[in-house]
Formats: sequence, C-alpha cells, structure tokens
Amino acid sequence: MIIVMRKSSGEQAIQMVIKRLKDNGFAIHESRGVEKILLGAVGDKSHYMDLALEAMDGVEKVISILAPYKLASREFKQDNTVIRVGDLEIGGEQIQVMAGPCAVESREQLLEAAHMVKASGARILRGGAFKPRTSPYAFQGLEERGLEFLAEAREQTGLYIVTEIMDTRKVDMVAEYADILQIGARNMQNFPLLKEVARYDKPVLLKRGLNATIEEWIMAAEYIMVSGNHQVILCERGIRTFETFTRNTLDLSAIPVVKHLSHLPVIADPSHAVGKWRFVQPMARAAVAAGADGLIIEVHPNPSEAICDGPQSITPERFAAIMAELRKTAAVMDRTL
Amino acid sequence: MIIVMRKSSGEQAIQMVIKRLKDNGFAIHESRGVEKILLGAVGDKSHYMDLALEAMDGVEKVISILAPYKLASREFKQDNTVIRVGDLEIGGEQIQVMAGPCAVESREQLLEAAHMVKASGARILRGGAFKPRTSPYAFQGLEERGLEFLAEAREQTGLYIVTEIMDTRKVDMVAEYADILQIGARNMQNFPLLKEVARYDKPVLLKRGLNATIEEWIMAAEYIMVSGNHQVILCERGIRTFETFTRNTLDLSAIPVVKHLSHLPVIADPSHAVGKWRFVQPMARAAVAAGADGLIIEVHPNPSEAICDGPQSITPERFAAIMAELRKTAAVMDRTL
Amino acid sequence: MIIVMRKSSGEQAIQMVIKRLKDNGFAIHESRGVEKILLGAVGDKSHYMDLALEAMDGVEKVISILAPYKLASREFKQDNTVIRVGDLEIGGEQIQVMAGPCAVESREQLLEAAHMVKASGARILRGGAFKPRTSPYAFQGLEERGLEFLAEAREQTGLYIVTEIMDTRKVDMVAEYADILQIGARNMQNFPLLKEVARYDKPVLLKRGLNATIEEWIMAAEYIMVSGNHQVILCERGIRTFETFTRNTLDLSAIPVVKHLSHLPVIADPSHAVGKWRFVQPMARAAVAAGADGLIIEVHPNPSEAICDGPQSITPERFAAIMAELRKTAAVMDRTL
Amino acid sequence: MIIVMRKSSGEQAIQMVIKRLKDNGFAIHESRGVEKILLGAVGDKSHYMDLALEAMDGVEKVISILAPYKLASREFKQDNTVIRVGDLEIGGEQIQVMAGPCAVESREQLLEAAHMVKASGARILRGGAFKPRTSPYAFQGLEERGLEFLAEAREQTGLYIVTEIMDTRKVDMVAEYADILQIGARNMQNFPLLKEVARYDKPVLLKRGLNATIEEWIMAAEYIMVSGNHQVILCERGIRTFETFTRNTLDLSAIPVVKHLSHLPVIADPSHAVGKWRFVQPMARAAVAAGADGLIIEVHPNPSEAICDGPQSITPERFAAIMAELRKTAAVMDRTL
Repeated sequence: MIIVMRKSSGEQAIQMVIKRLKDNGFAIHESRGVEKILLGAVGDKSHYMDLALEAMDGVEKVISILAPYKLASREFKQDNTVIRVGDLEIGGEQIQVMAGPCAVESREQLLEAAHMVKASGARILRGGAFKPRTSPYAFQGLEERGLEFLAEAREQTGLYIVTEIMDTRKVDMVAEYADILQIGARNMQNFPLLKEVARYDKPVLLKRGLNATIEEWIMAAEYIMVSGNHQVILCERGIRTFETFTRNTLDLSAIPVVKHLSHLPVIADPSHAVGKWRFVQPMARAAVAAGADGLIIEVHPNPSEAICDGPQSITPERFAAIMAELRKTAAVMDRTL
Repeated sequence: MIIVMRKSSGEQAIQMVIKRLKDNGFAIHESRGVEKILLGAVGDKSHYMDLALEAMDGVEKVISILAPYKLASREFKQDNTVIRVGDLEIGGEQIQVMAGPCAVESREQLLEAAHMVKASGARILRGGAFKPRTSPYAFQGLEERGLEFLAEAREQTGLYIVTEIMDTRKVDMVAEYADILQIGARNMQNFPLLKEVARYDKPVLLKRGLNATIEEWIMAAEYIMVSGNHQVILCERGIRTFETFTRNTLDLSAIPVVKHLSHLPVIADPSHAVGKWRFVQPMARAAVAAGADGLIIEVHPNPSEAICDGPQSITPERFAAIMAELRKTAAVMDRTL
Repeated sequence: MIIVMRKSSGEQAIQMVIKRLKDNGFAIHESRGVEKILLGAVGDKSHYMDLALEAMDGVEKVISILAPYKLASREFKQDNTVIRVGDLEIGGEQIQVMAGPCAVESREQLLEAAHMVKASGARILRGGAFKPRTSPYAFQGLEERGLEFLAEAREQTGLYIVTEIMDTRKVDMVAEYADILQIGARNMQNFPLLKEVARYDKPVLLKRGLNATIEEWIMAAEYIMVSGNHQVILCERGIRTFETFTRNTLDLSAIPVVKHLSHLPVIADPSHAVGKWRFVQPMARAAVAAGADGLIIEVHPNPSEAICDGPQSITPERFAAIMAELRKTAAVMDRTL
Repeated sequence: MIIVMRKSSGEQAIQMVIKRLKDNGFAIHESRGVEKILLGAVGDKSHYMDLALEAMDGVEKVISILAPYKLASREFKQDNTVIRVGDLEIGGEQIQVMAGPCAVESREQLLEAAHMVKASGARILRGGAFKPRTSPYAFQGLEERGLEFLAEAREQTGLYIVTEIMDTRKVDMVAEYADILQIGARNMQNFPLLKEVARYDKPVLLKRGLNATIEEWIMAAEYIMVSGNHQVILCERGIRTFETFTRNTLDLSAIPVVKHLSHLPVIADPSHAVGKWRFVQPMARAAVAAGADGLIIEVHPNPSEAICDGPQSITPERFAAIMAELRKTAAVMDRTL
C-alpha cells in the first residue's frame, strides 16, 4: 500500500502516520518528492483495511497495490478451478449451457421446457421458484412447489438444477432440491446470504451485481470462499449503464479480465443482459468467443405466454439453432459444448 | 399502456394482441400511422405486468404510461406524509439530523459520539451494529452488543436510534432496540427483507441503491407499503457513476423529483455519497436547499481511529459548525432544524 | 408520437395541445383513461422536433414512437450497405481489419508497422497524424508530415489509409491523403465537423462517443448522410461506465443492435475499449462472433516505446497470431477475413 | 509517479524500467514487498506522459500521484481567480446569474427575454446563435443574425453576452459579438477549438462534458490556459448516468471538489441538467448552497413556443421568483446576487 502525503503538512504528521503503520506491523519505504511524500508500506494487507489512514492529518490518498482478495486470486491458485456438478465439469474443456424458463410457472411448462432444452444439448436446467421482481404486484414465484417441479424435471431428464435463493431462511430448503445455488445480481452483496450458502457443499452461481466492479464481484466470491465453500462460478449478466436500448450492457471484457485475475470459472447470461430475444444469439456466440466457460439462457415453450421475462426468452426451436451454432464457435476455441 | 406494433407484421398479429388485452379486461384505442400501429390500452395497470406482450409477434415495444407504484404515489395521497418517531416528526416543518459513527465500535466510542451529536442539536443517533463490508476481512460489526450500546446511548441522551438490518433472521432482534429500521443501499432490492421489516410498526429508512433509478427506489418503498407498513423514509445516498474522485455521485435532483412523484419524506446522506469529510458540509447545505427533510451524517469522536468510513467522518467540532450553518439554510427554506 | 396528458389539467389544456398538433399537420387519435389522456399524433415526424409540447399546460410527457433518423434506418433501406474502399468492401462478406500504431511517430516506425500488418493480412492502415490527447502536454501528432508518411506507406504496401480529423479547417488536407476519414469518439457530436466531412466523396469511420446512446450515434451518421455522404461506417469503441479495470466497456451488443436498426456497416475497436493489450485478442474474437464487419486494432513495432497508447498496443507477432485465429472465427460466421 | 511491478518478472525487467526512468531524469526509490516491487519516481511530471511504461515487461500498473494539470491547480495559485467581464466579477463575492433563451429565435423573442431577465436582476444574457442539436432536422440556429440580435440586446439592456462557439472557423465571428465565449459540453474535448478560443482576450465558459471526469474537465481548462488564456469559468451542467427521469444528473459535489482542486470559478447550469422546468428552482438554490459562483438558467418569454429546450425553460415570472429566493440563499453564503 502507498500513502501519499502533502509535504506541506509537516514532519509531525508524517511521523504519526509512520508510527501508526509500524505499530501495525508494516515496513516503510519513504520517497520524498518536491510536493508529496510517498510511504510504501509493506506488510499484511488484511491489516490495513481497518486503519483509517485517509482520515489522518496530511494524508492525501491511500493507494492499495495488492488485490483485496486472496483465495479467489490467480496468484493464490495458478490453475483454473474446475467445479464438478455430478458428472459435469464447469471450467473444464466442455462449455456448459444452463437453459430453461425465467420462472417455474407450472408443472407442465417446466417439464416441457426441460425436455426441449435437454433435446438440444443443455445439461443444466434453470428456473426460478423464488423470483426477485421489481414490482410487488408481479408474480413472485411458486416457492417450494416450484422446487418440487424442478426436482421432478431432473428425475425425468437427468438435467441438473440451478435455481435462485433470495433469503437466508430458505437456503436449507433450496439446497435440498438444487444442484447449483444461484445468488442473483441484486443479492451479490447480500453478505449474510453469501455466508449462508457457503455452509453447503454445493456449487454457487454468483451473478455480478448491476453496479458491481469486477473487483467487488470477486470480493463477493471471496466471502463465500473464506466461509468455507470454494465452488464458486461467476456469471456476467450485464451492468447498468446509460444505454437503454438493451436492458443492461453485457460486459464481455469482464470474462477475460476475470480469467486473468482469478482461477474461478466464469459464464455469461446474455438473456438478462440484452433483454430482447433477438440479440441473445449473437451475444451467446460472442460470450463463447470471449472465453466463457458456460452460458445461462432463458428458454420458454411459449415466450408470449411467459409470466416473466417473456421478451427476452427464446423458443425451443431457436434454442436448438443456437446450440448448433455454438458448437461451431466452441470448436474454434478448442472446446466442446 | 401503449403497445407499438409494426404495420408490416399483418392484421392477424394485431388482432391477437388486441384479443389478449381485451381478455385481460383492457379497453383498446387504435391509432394507425404509416409504419406503426399504436394500441392504447386502458385498464387496471397491475394486470399488465405479467402479460408478455413484447414477446408477441409484431410488437415492437410496450410503453407504460402510469407509474408502476400506487401507494407511494403523489396521486394516491396528495399531502406529504409525516412520520412520527416518538415526539419527532420526519417530513414536517422540522429538518431532522441523524448523526453518529459508521459503526458501533465500543461502548465508550458510541456514548462519546452520542453526547457530542446531541449537544450540537442532532435528535437521532446513527450507528451500525451489523456492517455490510465489501471485504470479508473487514470488521463486520459488534452485532447484538452493538445494539445494546445503542440502547444505552438512547437512555443516556434521549436520542432516537436508527440502525441497519441486513438479514431477515435478525429483524426481530434489531427491531427490539431500534426506533427506525434502516435498509442499506445494497439491500434496497432485497425483497424478502423489505417484506420482513413491513411486519413491524416502526419507520423504515430506505436507502437508494447505487444503481437504482428513482422509479425502482419508490417501487422498493411500495413493497414495504403494500406489505402493511406505510412509514417509509427515503434516503438519497449517492449513485454509482463514472466519476471516481467522490465515492459516489450525490443525486440531489432526486430530492425534488421524489417530492413531485411521491408523498413520502426524503432525506440525504452526504457522507457516503462524497466519501471525504471535506465535502460533507457543502453537500449537507445543498441537500437542505434542494428540499431534503433530513440528513444522516457520519460523526466520529476521532475519525482517524475509526474502524470504518474514517475518511468521510467528521469530528464533533466540525459537526457543531455544520449544524449552526444548516440552521441558517433551513431558515431560508422556512424550516427549522 | 404520443402525448400523455393529465386529465386533471382540464379540457381547455387538452384542446390547446390538439390544436397545436393539428395546426402542424398531425392527425390525432384520443384515448382517455381514468387518470391520463393519450393523444396519438400521426404525421411527419421531422415536424415535431421543434414543437415544445412538453412545456404546454397539462402535458406530462411526449413519447416518440418512430426512430428520429430516417436515411440511416433499416426501414429506409432493407439491404446492408456495402462501402467500397478501392477494391475492398466494408459491410460485405469479407471482414476488414484496420491495423497500425496509435500515432504516426516517425517515417521508420510507420513503414515498419505498415509492412508488418500487411504481412499478417490487414488491408487498411491506421495511424494518427492529429491526436486528441487529454493532456496539452502530451504529444499532439506530426500533422501534415504524418499524413505524408501515411501516403508513403500506402504506396509501399498497397494498404488503404484511415486517419482521424479533428478540425473543420483541416478536412481538406486530411482528405487529400486519407482513403477513409475518421471521426473520433470525442467528436461524434462535433456537428460542424460531421457536415464538413460529408462534403467529400470518401467513406467516413464514425466512432461512437463515450457517452452516446446507440440512437445518438446513428443520429450522428444521419447528420453526415443528410449532408450528402452515405458512406458511413460505424465503429463501437467502448462506452464509459463505472468499471475502471478496463479503460472503457466494449458494448458488443451494440453490434447486433445497430445491424437491426440500420443498414450501415459496423466495426469494433477492441484496443481503445479495453486499454490493455492482454485483452485485445479475446475481444477482437468476440466482436467478430457478435457480427462485426471489421476491426480496428492498435499494433506497434515496439509498444513499450510507443508515444501513445503503448499499453493497449500489440506487437506485430501477437497481431499475426490474432489474425490467424480471427480467420477461424470468421469462418464460423460464414465470412472471410 | 509509482510503478508497480511483479516480482516474478525478474530482475532484468525491473532494471530496464529503472533505466528508462533514470534516462528521463527521474530519481527512483525502491520498495520491495513479497509479491510486488514499487518504484517511486520523482521528477518532472510532464515528462512521463509519453513513456509507455505500462507496456514494458513486468509492469503491472503506473499510478500517477500528482494531478496532471498545473496552471489550473490550487497548488499553482492559492487564491481564487476572479474573472472580470466589464464591471462584473465572476468568482468574487457576487454570484452572477446568466439567463435567457436556449436559442436566439427572433429579434423580438430575444429582446423581450433580455429585458425581462434584466428586470429580475440577471447581469449576463445567454442565447445560442449556433445550436448543437442531436438531430440534423432540428433548428440549427440563426448564426450571425442571432449574434447581431444579441449585440442589440446588450446595447438596449446593458447585459453582457455569453454565447456558444462550435466551430474553429467561427471563433473570430463569435468573439466579435460575445463577452464570454462558451464551449458546450459536447465540445469540452474539441481540442482545436480549445486552442482557438485561447487566442482571444475573452473569458471562456467551459461546460463539463457529459462523460467527463472532474480531472478531464480541469485538463480541458488547462488546454486553454497553457495556450495563453487564463480566464476560464467552469460550468457543471449534469453528467450522463443511468437515471432517465432527469435529462442528466447534476453533480453538485463537483462544485466543492473543483474549488478544492483548482482556483478557477465554477458555476452551475440546472436547466440542462434536470431538463424539466419544475426542478430548476430547487437545483439552482442547491447549487448556490454548494458554493457555485454563478448560475446559467434558461428563461423564455413563452416556453411552450420555444424552438428548443422549451420543457426546461422557465417563464420570466418564475425567474423573478427564483431570483428573489436565490438572494436569500446567497446571503446565507455571505454573498450577494
């Protein structure tokens, strides 16, 4: 860490900062310029978080050099993490596609969707039983009955299940049914929930928050990891920007950036990012070309009857065409799908 | 609501949309231009949410005309809502200042802060017992002991207590101690938590999410109101933008906008928005001039020893000066403080 | 266009708005709901721009239904526009790669770069003679000498030249040397410059502004087109968001969106978007997979000696590897490169 | 400046960076941690801009410590700059209000507006003769005739004139008529234009770009100053964010931040920021409370007939009321208006 101080604030202020750092176990290297003094502080990064150095006299700014995360960092673990879901691998040579409806609406709808995405080559079924809706007047999900339908779909098709958890009190219930526990974008910094999912021996799909920097997103993964669960799959799903034609802005550069900074697998959700079915296909393809380890795509047997996210859901026929095309893109990346 | 359709998609597609709308109780007014057909649909707005009209053939976009919230809207209730906390009013003629440390760190620190902010004229004490920290390695709060210290501070000073809740499982505990239940920015769309706080007969301080539009923020208030608790105080605390010199960007225009759209009181948190103590004073003054019903300000007996948010905390001496100045600005607004 | 009015504002206000619209040649369709009145106005969209309807009594908002651009729209011209640069086509089956240094620094540097990118398969040479630099103390370009070096490079290699114009007074000079006139992101809404480049019979490469919506970007193209030059190539180069790890956020979804809304070709600039050479390769690949008609990539014979944008420039060796890989991605898209 | 290097990249890479820095006149202080090596480089900051250090082997990032601007900085000049326009001072004790229509539409409209804003206490008249419009189909301004009307209004009222320049070829013409040369938000980084206005001995009103950081904005002022004109007035006019209810987001915290970083005066433009007349008043008041040295407000004799920006223009009656109120707010700031 580097502490930038104003020379004009005087020697006493400088010595007080140095003392505080030394008292906390840091070694100090000084570098005195004409206007500023730089203090390079070498020591245990986890200690500095709670030193309010910027509130001390004469301190202009504090610059952190090391990433604030450790377990999730590429320095900590050089090899890519491969996460196992039954016989599947996420983060390995095979790109995994998770597909299904936004919400579990009924037994029939879900089973129909499940059989259809299975037929096109998906290996994981998505579907929400608890839905985070902007409006309290919108459909909030079938809750446990939705989970039961998901379990039945798994039994019938062999697809694994990923579904969202929103409430610390429901993790137990969801974990009973799901193969992958999903933390939605709005809950990326719901820290009690992160700690709670860490208590289960299940992979966690951690969506990037709409306003989260890549560093904050990896820090959210670190919360889960430091609490004991290292099976975190990151999911880029679009960030909020000034552009309104698309629902959000899919930040595909986050994919190679995450791969550079971390060993965790990262997938993309083109459906939520673009918000319009028409653009799901090109963005799914682009995500694979950017290096994504998987995709999560909204597919509905009849999008115009969907209770939620109909406009961005694709039909099973389009999904089949997309899967065929993605196989070719995967091949260019020396991967399968 | 207006449905915009492409003329080129043919009469059948148009008739199917009309049928779906009529089946759901809407009256339809058609307006046919050269390229587009507009269907004005008049009916119960709460019904349309779950119609996936945009996924129907030929539909280009669906434009909502009425605000999606009802109970929180100015149309629903013309008069300003005034919320009572003991003998105080929030949203009335008096501007209320909530002040205190970011985190409750110790009994001594909190009591010292409480006496000091009380002496300067604050009537509500802030202080976090549960802290949402970006890093799992940072101090996470004293939890129930922190709440006990807050209660003791109230007893000693007569200040009311506002403190944050992060977990649905802890609402009971926090509600036992707090006078105002705070929902932090990161939890603005933690819907289970919104529903849970609605079960208590206590005012809720609802911070705007870093990436939340004003409409989404009011919708979060609507969640609490529709679940039975109408005592919602909105709090603007800065949104995330590309500017990095300040921690966030305080959107003061949100204050008159909220007052225009809603009857709920709205306050401002300049400390979190700017992130640097130096800018708290001018932004507190500007917030009052913009029409804020209150302020929440971080004050620490010794900011450079603060465990969290030291850089944006002000000293009790500066706080006293700010309060004196704010009284003059309040007077210009024909209000007291 | 739809005018939303409050019913409570009274019949007179409504009739005044209707009169203003009729006086300007619009036909009106009314739709009266409980709270609001909707006026659908059908007529010549170019007329409404200068009607300040939103300032009239009782008008709550005015919603534009038709896109504000005409010549650039897909409705106006169904087929993709293919722009010819000598014997090359931009927007056709072949994906075109423009490559070269950020700035023309010297004759040697430019010629070396030109031969190298040519050897790897680029057909267009980029290089700035006039540089828009954030700092007045940074290198501002070789100006006309830089243009002469570009012309010499074209002569030696057969590469076509794309270079930026920043000043209406210099368009004449730049057009003498360049094959494609580049409008940089900072000048996307420099309207006099847009009008000036329209006077030449040369293709214009129009970069998206850092804060421009897709609609505003297409409107900037419309400025050039309505002034007489229909040869506009759009270029996505990253928008400004809150994420700071990358220099900007490459909005690849803009590529299929532009293809949907407009007939103009669109290319991507991964170098400026990511700002770090390491991420140029995956984003170039992703841009092609998203449907880009071309790429513009910064290549420098020796990036660490580059006078500008060294950190995001790639070496000629890396460029050769990228080109080989892009050919495979292009093939998946049924295109060549 | 600090160069952060990875220890793992080896001693040779480190020595090459040190050599490059020493060759450019920097003194180096090393600080070696477990994973990283920090090189503190002390020297002439204007030299480092063109060193592509980040492209050198082993360099992870380069952190600039000193602000990149000099002439505009508070360190360079401790006292507030006061700019004289005739007998007025901008940046002094008196807050200056610039008012008038968005565009000069006709002689009558402008003269009426001028007399009205004069009567309410404005001392500077705004009005565009050259209008930067998003659409090529919208009114583009009366050009020189508009300037003549402005000059006539000055003659009749004694108001000073501020008006926008968009084209380097027109600076001469505009400077003949205007007292203050305005650079609009879209041209904040039109560097040839910045250099051109610097050639005149007239104050320049420099609006902040919609996507410009505060640092970039001050750098644009530095362009003008280093080219010879130190009379720069900064103007905050709203930045682009995800919020769409207001036209832009007025970043009032930029006002105290600019005052902290620079000695230049700074004013606010609430009209363009909020885009709706209803919110101009509270934001004008808040800007003064935040420390603004002036305001620029759109006033139109008949907003609903305005050719541009009608929705955000206020009537002369409302303007009179605003001015009366602003005088009270100015008094709280120990200033006049």
